[in-house]
Amino acid sequence: MTQSVTVVMAQINPIVGDLSGNTDLIIQAAQQAKERFSADLVVFPEMTLTGYPPEDVLLREGLYPQVEQALLKIASEIQNIACVVGYPMIDELGERFNMAAWIDEGTIRASYIKQNLPNYSVFDEQRYFSAGNQPCVVEFKGIQFGLLICEDIWKISPAAQAKEAGAEVLLTLNASPFSLEKHQDRIKTLQKRVEENRRPIIYVNQIGGQDELVFDGGSFAMSADGEVCVQSPEFKDDLSPVRLLKQADSVIMLPGISAELYADEARVYEAIKTGVRDYVNKNGFPGVVLGLSGGIDSALTLAIAVDALGAERVEAVMMPFRYTAQISQDDAAEQAKTMGVAYQVLPIEEAYEALEKTLHATLAGTEPDITEENLQARIRGTLLMAISNKTGKMVLATSNKSEVAVGYSTLYGDMVGGFSPLKDVPKTLVYRLAKYRNTFGEVIPDRVITRPPSAELRPDQTDQDSLPDYDTLDEIMRAYVKLDKSPQEIAAMGYDETEVRRVIRLIDRSEYKRRQAAPGVKITHRAFGRDRRYPITSRYCE
Amino acid sequence: MTQSVTVVMAQINPIVGDLSGNTDLIIQAAQQAKERFSADLVVFPEMTLTGYPPEDVLLREGLYPQVEQALLKIASEIQNIACVVGYPMIDELGERFNMAAWIDEGTIRASYIKQNLPNYSVFDEQRYFSAGNQPCVVEFKGIQFGLLICEDIWKISPAAQAKEAGAEVLLTLNASPFSLEKHQDRIKTLQKRVEENRRPIIYVNQIGGQDELVFDGGSFAMSADGEVCVQSPEFKDDLSPVRLLKQADSVIMLPGISAELYADEARVYEAIKTGVRDYVNKNGFPGVVLGLSGGIDSALTLAIAVDALGAERVEAVMMPFRYTAQISQDDAAEQAKTMGVAYQVLPIEEAYEALEKTLHATLAGTEPDITEENLQARIRGTLLMAISNKTGKMVLATSNKSEVAVGYSTLYGDMVGGFSPLKDVPKTLVYRLAKYRNTFGEVIPDRVITRPPSAELRPDQTDQDSLPDYDTLDEIMRAYVKLDKSPQEIAAMGYDETEVRRVIRLIDRSEYKRRQAAPGVKITHRAFGRDRRYPITSRYCE
Repeated sequence: MTQSVTVVMAQINPIVGDLSGNTDLIIQAAQQAKERFSADLVVFPEMTLTGYPPEDVLLREGLYPQVEQALLKIASEIQNIACVVGYPMIDELGERFNMAAWIDEGTIRASYIKQNLPNYSVFDEQRYFSAGNQPCVVEFKGIQFGLLICEDIWKISPAAQAKEAGAEVLLTLNASPFSLEKHQDRIKTLQKRVEENRRPIIYVNQIGGQDELVFDGGSFAMSADGEVCVQSPEFKDDLSPVRLLKQADSVIMLPGISAELYADEARVYEAIKTGVRDYVNKNGFPGVVLGLSGGIDSALTLAIAVDALGAERVEAVMMPFRYTAQISQDDAAEQAKTMGVAYQVLPIEEAYEALEKTLHATLAGTEPDITEENLQARIRGTLLMAISNKTGKMVLATSNKSEVAVGYSTLYGDMVGGFSPLKDVPKTLVYRLAKYRNTFGEVIPDRVITRPPSAELRPDQTDQDSLPDYDTLDEIMRAYVKLDKSPQEIAAMGYDETEVRRVIRLIDRSEYKRRQAAPGVKITHRAFGRDRRYPITSRYCE
Repeated sequence: MTQSVTVVMAQINPIVGDLSGNTDLIIQAAQQAKERFSADLVVFPEMTLTGYPPEDVLLREGLYPQVEQALLKIASEIQNIACVVGYPMIDELGERFNMAAWIDEGTIRASYIKQNLPNYSVFDEQRYFSAGNQPCVVEFKGIQFGLLICEDIWKISPAAQAKEAGAEVLLTLNASPFSLEKHQDRIKTLQKRVEENRRPIIYVNQIGGQDELVFDGGSFAMSADGEVCVQSPEFKDDLSPVRLLKQADSVIMLPGISAELYADEARVYEAIKTGVRDYVNKNGFPGVVLGLSGGIDSALTLAIAVDALGAERVEAVMMPFRYTAQISQDDAAEQAKTMGVAYQVLPIEEAYEALEKTLHATLAGTEPDITEENLQARIRGTLLMAISNKTGKMVLATSNKSEVAVGYSTLYGDMVGGFSPLKDVPKTLVYRLAKYRNTFGEVIPDRVITRPPSAELRPDQTDQDSLPDYDTLDEIMRAYVKLDKSPQEIAAMGYDETEVRRVIRLIDRSEYKRRQAAPGVKITHRAFGRDRRYPITSRYCE
């Protein structure tokens, strides 16, 4: 006798702490899974009820009764379909667990406790949770399903243990943040698990932005021989059905629909777009405002903002000064027009002169230096914040990762903003993303991409007056920040050791600036922010 | 036969990452312990070689050869005295450990691996370290010494295990950050350990500031019957000898010198002073500059800065505007004169008018609101940063914890600064500290303490126009932030529930501001910063 079971991967976008909103999302998704696919079972991401990561909200006792209520509501309102949801639980001793519940016919039939608690990179799960040590296998319509949660599937033991306990199919609930190459890593890792256990795996990830993190979705179902049978899209809410057949003693996963995946630049672009959209929307801002300088960073940021939010929610401000080239003004105006955003020009000459006069005693008799340059940047930051205060729009900062790394940015100046879309994007990737964006509608003037980058804070300045060329800078940064290589090792890659040490010193000494920077989307293996926790006060040197 | 052993508690102030500087400190302290006290053994704090906490510097492979070298140097240079130092170690599998080494006669005689790795509050030790599970007991001059590290002594098992393995005296190496009542907690906890094991304990803590943390020292030696026999001073480098006698089968700890401990306000004042001094000095700033408004927060900050750094390294700037009362200007001038600091007055009228004019299109036809208030604060921040850029002096921010909690402060305005001394000091405690400071020299004009607090950003404004009185605000804040109480529970303490909910909403919604705030000294049980990790994007509500 052949038994057929349809499992829907429910790739939703929960909001952290929004128990009632997330519960409604779950109930709606379950109903749709039933209606659209006659599904038998719907599987949600890790910590579905609270969103991920709830951070220290997990320490609040008041959270847990809300979780209980949400589970009860789901159990009572979801009819004719089983579902697996993720949530946190606290026991009578005050120990907390990261759990998955199998809800079926009005009750929680079984629950699983996550065994591997990541406490590296952006993750702090051992701050909150105690680990489980038991498998959880549920028989449902003749098939044995084993439950796993995120990090569990990256280790050998929990899947093997579930198989040992009789699991014929593995279900894994995930809140796996995006970074470059992460999707390929997931596929490769699951292929290993499948090879070890000869069991199909259904991998459900969430989508959406949460502060520094973006979840890319890309849920998938992998057969027992390592083929991806169903692939959900990236960065989109989605319900994708997976059909399983039980014949005699084996379970077969049938090929289904596979969404096309993004290529590299497109994927990063979508990640940042999602991060901006969700930060703005989940925090309730009516729109954004940014300084458009005629340079490539603000040009790309503007394009992303418009793609994320629509032109009508985006405002650009050009704030020229005596060092601003005419082509910068022309290019900014052109892009604003092309993209159809509100645009104003606010010259900063008068404010600069007033501040210079006020500071007469400090500046008189000194050579112009970083002080005068920062004054310009801070006037611009102050103007943008005034517009933000008056209109409610959030300021987008426009610094890229290369600048953030070496401190080539002004605290309280161009670092002003509620969110920093390019914070984890090295300058060389900024160029690639700008070119990519122009492939579907040329919105960034070509000259912005081709002219030498300049902060335009003094006459005839270019970035390369004080920094190595960006190809070099980005490679040194990658080797030091991402790969933890020593100055000697980096020099051995073909760079001048003095230059390498200068860049590293700049990176080390800019930690104080980064500590006051706006959050931005993590897109690399190691972002600045919670992903990389360096002391400000440090004399460490290799 | 009676054997006598002198153990010196070496309460030093290491700098994070400064392996060679810290090694020199250790060698000097050991020599002095020998010379001054004919000591047999000198015990240093946890992670002496690297300082604490080194954070992600621990992830760098290059750290560990430096640690090895430092240990070799200590072993070869410290003569005629045994020493116990703390350090991190990595094994061939890449696992890291938080260790203590017993160094004696040129070699590492024994080493201990920390068993309890704190991963709560400000601590992330499970991000870096694997736990040990073995006791380490060293026989030295006829006495069996058991080694423990910090968190170990807060649990029952490691001390019991060391006793089981024969330890007659317990030595514990600590990097225990200051917070109110922490010293009493340590004493009480060690009294429990002593009661359980009937073994004397020597507790060595470090001193000094490291970013958000201050270590208060206060090392002590407790006899087997729970008496403090030797008490080192708080917040000071110190070497204190502890004399042990071994007679027949028992070890007796002799009474020694006990430093007087600080009372509450004095202790907090010393903590903040230490935090400011070490942040400024360890990061190499020549001095500090701050805005002196005539209000109590900046008045107290100025007093702390002068006490920490000396008047010649401190500069105060009064930046009056049309809403600044004459008495504010008078009081600021008076305090600056009393304290002997450089002082200048920079009126912001002209800069304000220029910015207002530049923003004409945005401001025209609108009612004055927070926009105009923030403009004033941001001009002041910009002026202070210009002075900082030109002189190298670091800006001190002056916000207190109550303001930081509810967001009653301007991002890029009065929040500007490299360090924020009062960040964890509730407003009611600001008043108590100001009064305390005046007990040893009246430096804060009495009127500054007695007049109603005002931000002076619009006519006749007082803080209580938009906030509850500070007694109420601080109690609600304490209940919500420190004690994690629900709105209902807080209301039940005798507050209006609507008011309670309003304050909580303000606290929740100000997370984005705090994320861009300068670091400041943790002095309470739960500070904002790494101690309390809340998402910015959150709809959690109780």
